[in-house]
Amino acid sequence: MNSLGRIFRVGIFGESHGESAGIVIDGCPAGLPLAVEDFLPDLERRKGGTQKGTTPRQEEDKPVFKSGIFNGKTTGAPIAIFFENKNTRSGDYEKQKSVPRPGHADFVAHHKFGGFEDYRGGGHFSGRLTVAIVAAGVIARKLLHQATDPAIEVKAAILEIGGESNLEAGLQKAIEAKDSIGGVVECRVNNLPIGLGEPFFDSVESVISHAVLSIPAIRAIEFGTGFAAARMFGSEHNDSIDNMNGHTRTNHAGGVVGGITNGNDLVFRIAVKPTSSTPKEQQTLNWHTGAIENFSVKGRHDLCIALRVPVVLEAMTAIVLADFMLLEQRISRILH
Amino acid sequence: MNSLGRIFRVGIFGESHGESAGIVIDGCPAGLPLAVEDFLPDLERRKGGTQKGTTPRQEEDKPVFKSGIFNGKTTGAPIAIFFENKNTRSGDYEKQKSVPRPGHADFVAHHKFGGFEDYRGGGHFSGRLTVAIVAAGVIARKLLHQATDPAIEVKAAILEIGGESNLEAGLQKAIEAKDSIGGVVECRVNNLPIGLGEPFFDSVESVISHAVLSIPAIRAIEFGTGFAAARMFGSEHNDSIDNMNGHTRTNHAGGVVGGITNGNDLVFRIAVKPTSSTPKEQQTLNWHTGAIENFSVKGRHDLCIALRVPVVLEAMTAIVLADFMLLEQRISRILH
Amino acid sequence: MNSLGRIFRVGIFGESHGESAGIVIDGCPAGLPLAVEDFLPDLERRKGGTQKGTTPRQEEDKPVFKSGIFNGKTTGAPIAIFFENKNTRSGDYEKQKSVPRPGHADFVAHHKFGGFEDYRGGGHFSGRLTVAIVAAGVIARKLLHQATDPAIEVKAAILEIGGESNLEAGLQKAIEAKDSIGGVVECRVNNLPIGLGEPFFDSVESVISHAVLSIPAIRAIEFGTGFAAARMFGSEHNDSIDNMNGHTRTNHAGGVVGGITNGNDLVFRIAVKPTSSTPKEQQTLNWHTGAIENFSVKGRHDLCIALRVPVVLEAMTAIVLADFMLLEQRISRILH
Amino acid sequence: MNSLGRIFRVGIFGESHGESAGIVIDGCPAGLPLAVEDFLPDLERRKGGTQKGTTPRQEEDKPVFKSGIFNGKTTGAPIAIFFENKNTRSGDYEKQKSVPRPGHADFVAHHKFGGFEDYRGGGHFSGRLTVAIVAAGVIARKLLHQATDPAIEVKAAILEIGGESNLEAGLQKAIEAKDSIGGVVECRVNNLPIGLGEPFFDSVESVISHAVLSIPAIRAIEFGTGFAAARMFGSEHNDSIDNMNGHTRTNHAGGVVGGITNGNDLVFRIAVKPTSSTPKEQQTLNWHTGAIENFSVKGRHDLCIALRVPVVLEAMTAIVLADFMLLEQRISRILH
Repeated sequence: MNSLGRIFRVGIFGESHGESAGIVIDGCPAGLPLAVEDFLPDLERRKGGTQKGTTPRQEEDKPVFKSGIFNGKTTGAPIAIFFENKNTRSGDYEKQKSVPRPGHADFVAHHKFGGFEDYRGGGHFSGRLTVAIVAAGVIARKLLHQATDPAIEVKAAILEIGGESNLEAGLQKAIEAKDSIGGVVECRVNNLPIGLGEPFFDSVESVISHAVLSIPAIRAIEFGTGFAAARMFGSEHNDSIDNMNGHTRTNHAGGVVGGITNGNDLVFRIAVKPTSSTPKEQQTLNWHTGAIENFSVKGRHDLCIALRVPVVLEAMTAIVLADFMLLEQRISRILH
Repeated sequence: MNSLGRIFRVGIFGESHGESAGIVIDGCPAGLPLAVEDFLPDLERRKGGTQKGTTPRQEEDKPVFKSGIFNGKTTGAPIAIFFENKNTRSGDYEKQKSVPRPGHADFVAHHKFGGFEDYRGGGHFSGRLTVAIVAAGVIARKLLHQATDPAIEVKAAILEIGGESNLEAGLQKAIEAKDSIGGVVECRVNNLPIGLGEPFFDSVESVISHAVLSIPAIRAIEFGTGFAAARMFGSEHNDSIDNMNGHTRTNHAGGVVGGITNGNDLVFRIAVKPTSSTPKEQQTLNWHTGAIENFSVKGRHDLCIALRVPVVLEAMTAIVLADFMLLEQRISRILH
Repeated sequence: MNSLGRIFRVGIFGESHGESAGIVIDGCPAGLPLAVEDFLPDLERRKGGTQKGTTPRQEEDKPVFKSGIFNGKTTGAPIAIFFENKNTRSGDYEKQKSVPRPGHADFVAHHKFGGFEDYRGGGHFSGRLTVAIVAAGVIARKLLHQATDPAIEVKAAILEIGGESNLEAGLQKAIEAKDSIGGVVECRVNNLPIGLGEPFFDSVESVISHAVLSIPAIRAIEFGTGFAAARMFGSEHNDSIDNMNGHTRTNHAGGVVGGITNGNDLVFRIAVKPTSSTPKEQQTLNWHTGAIENFSVKGRHDLCIALRVPVVLEAMTAIVLADFMLLEQRISRILH
Repeated sequence: MNSLGRIFRVGIFGESHGESAGIVIDGCPAGLPLAVEDFLPDLERRKGGTQKGTTPRQEEDKPVFKSGIFNGKTTGAPIAIFFENKNTRSGDYEKQKSVPRPGHADFVAHHKFGGFEDYRGGGHFSGRLTVAIVAAGVIARKLLHQATDPAIEVKAAILEIGGESNLEAGLQKAIEAKDSIGGVVECRVNNLPIGLGEPFFDSVESVISHAVLSIPAIRAIEFGTGFAAARMFGSEHNDSIDNMNGHTRTNHAGGVVGGITNGNDLVFRIAVKPTSSTPKEQQTLNWHTGAIENFSVKGRHDLCIALRVPVVLEAMTAIVLADFMLLEQRISRILH
């Protein structure tokens, strides 16, 4: 399904080399000021265009509002936002017709959609669609900002690249190896109220994981101490509650107990796989001939897609939290 | 929300020390044979009652069919299954009223539900509810079994306890320390068809994570090489496709590419935190007095809840996969 | 699907001659007092047992709470309510195996569920399930009652039986003709706030119609002047707004404009078909022989099912309105 | 909510005088040929522009495909379709700011969205949005067409205007009275398979009513004999099954029994209220002054909106039926 959320609902569409990528946001409260300028900083962060290790493809990435905004504010009706795809070079991808790229969705998409899929640049499976997520995330963050005092802040940062906590070093490793490389990103949210989350099935971990693991290239998520918790004793792992606000001395739980926020920082980490499109020569199947072929990527690609993930991760997290806040009636349907 | 799924939908209810735990399964195809005996092996596995490190509380755990089954087969109508709670000792939990147990949902539930929550034994937050998940899992697995040849098999196994791959050793560590302990569980599914999964948002990873992270005590999930992928080069991580069936030489992807199954084994691992109820003395807040108190668990509890997780994990995974199979029209709505 | 609603969600299960009928209510706010006695008056109204023209089958219809209630109040967790089926006589229905009853779901259920359906007394298609709707309705009405001052009241009344506005006369017609008969029921809700409804697709009319037309035997619905509006001029039909509260002099709109409540009484009417089980001899197909047979109903049945509809209609309406009120944040998630 | 459907899902957005109206269709099978020309006949029917009694506002109404189509066929990814609003004259609507138009959503929208709503021409509440419904309907009908042999056909026709079955006469009545007028439209679907519909809550009547009553100006719906059924005896109303295909001699049920299609023609009728914007002078409230004012409509409007309803009704019906067909696995996810 291409939509997510119960009250604050997002529906995504688009392709890498089609007309556009876009998103429709349903259930956004009325009265939120929104201008193109609000979107530009996050969209710029997502491009990561001047950074070493990111793709030279440069889209303008200017959001076009198609509905739901009037006199500079949200109206309560669905907000449709578009991004035109201008800077595409489809010729690069002709070979995909017969040779599914290793690590990409080409092979599975061909099976699932019977060969009708738009295979150019990954089509609907492309990281290009994250531009739309970032746009929805901007709106979600603005909602969160005005909801509490002090304001809820969602911040993601790269913890390591290729196993190195010095990002330069990790990237240098990839450049030297002429290979792509993965990374770990941490997200931290502060000033959340106690009580968000809708267990049994819609625990905070469940819904955040659902959203976050739909971002292309994400392969793992852990909350609080995560996998390390599996190696701890209960007396070490349990966070003692310190005061009536629920503050705990330690935060091994990462701010979620019983699937519900406990008032401490929400903390989780994700693993980003190395970009599937690596400059290294690889082998793959040619499904017209049935033979194994050597394969090397043309196109324009990031050496380390993890570099562009933080802003997308923040956006997804904000989208989920805005929905939880609305469900908990902590964001009202008309803003003043 | 207490329901999950699009076609094969489960809705859970119940409490640890209330009348019962149960589940309603909507959208199960008609014609599936179901008998009480089908449920007993998995229910027995879940109890883990004779195992060292599991709670001495023993429920009979006999499923009671309340609807949806006629002449020993599913009818296509919702299947309601009940488990009576007989073996409860609520007196054990009186103290919870004023002292939220460290690591448990007591504190957050009190905030979210205004003190109206059933606090006895964790109420609706209790691991007791997994009995209902296991029941729905039995049905899901029977659906999966008859759908393909060779049959889809879902198997979970404990990889480590307290950091030890020798489970006896891990458990012994806990017993000696008089403390509870965590573990890692791996789930593996074979014989899946290519093409399951509904990206963008309903990628296989997304929906499995959603379901799995709603199981109490699960704090992390990783697919394929997972966090290790973040430390790999692309040329290492990409799995070369070997033949027209999509078989890959390696399986770093864990059977999912682009959010869609690729015909290789689906593989993922989860982290189970140490049981929150540890025999060790701890500190916590008394929210009537506002003072920090020493706290030690009475009640009956597992030293290592991870021991009971595999069958629950299999059940959740089967539930998700049955839904994907129905969406992909690979399970028909009438079985013959 | 056997569930309905976005925040206040109900999931129904059961059969006419199976173990039970029941309902799970998810998303009910915490803190609502609930006792068995709250349910008895509406359950009694539904039975209509002492009324001329209603079935002599008498179930005890005592709700059994299985979860979600603690110390006499809702906890915020799902509320499961059961009704045991005791007074069934399945032998009456053996003939259905080969002879689908005219006007009943026997034939379509057989096709849809491949012969696996529980055919006894209509199985899952039976009006028996409305006992569960009435139970959920009791909860919804209690929610509505405490939400506004003056309280929202949902009242349904029979307008006509067999075309007669004197109900005795209509019923007498049926008794004399030894035939079943239909009727018209009107529902009226007062003290609703302005602003309920979630267009485009979830207009008040849409969601009420969805719920109401799932009640067995309902074949039509009209809001305000309904079909008569099709014969009016705009200047007649438009309701002039009188004052700042939105009061209108006339109420042709039936309290809904643009899919949203306007503060006037919500008014709609439904058509109830004559009970399919009529004492009159009829013809139908024997699908084992392929021949047309004479058929006459045994079993116990209502001459006029419309007599039992008002309380069910009120329940469905209250369920929908409680959900709208929660979406509009006019019922809070914790009640005090 | 601005989306509808379980597998074939539509999400609508847009305003009367905003940038655009549009729709995103998620879950459409891959491989369906789609060209702009496929849409033009139905879009033209909706405009009704050359007909007496319809608005002189003429949009070009050319669908712009933004995603989901590649090489002239659907890809299985979401299909976004846009209609630009070019021919708007917002100045006409300035007065709405202080004077809610009788019969329109102005007053309720102002309350629900706190004055932030786009009030120009009804904004998101405008009939303009039905252009997007018609576009989705074209796709749904193409899906239905290729699914059975003979093909499923959805046809709607006006039964009466202003109470006259001679449409010219009804329209003439309105023109003479210088007033707007309502009508009745019937929809008929043939060649449907037995077994569509998902009771309890998602009966065919429920889901069609949900969709149809979201169309602006629709106030009532009746299936088969509808309200007339309330005046019939059971022996008259029951349709005798004639043969093994389920054919019935009469069709009082309108093709739906127990909420499920029975293989006979699906038949239902709807009431369309007179256009709220009538040329007649009316009274309404000025909510800035609190005084009652005389009010007369400027702008461009249909005298009889019912004239434009049939193609919208067909579209909504086709959308619902395509979803039911997918749920029943009678439309496959890849078309060949």
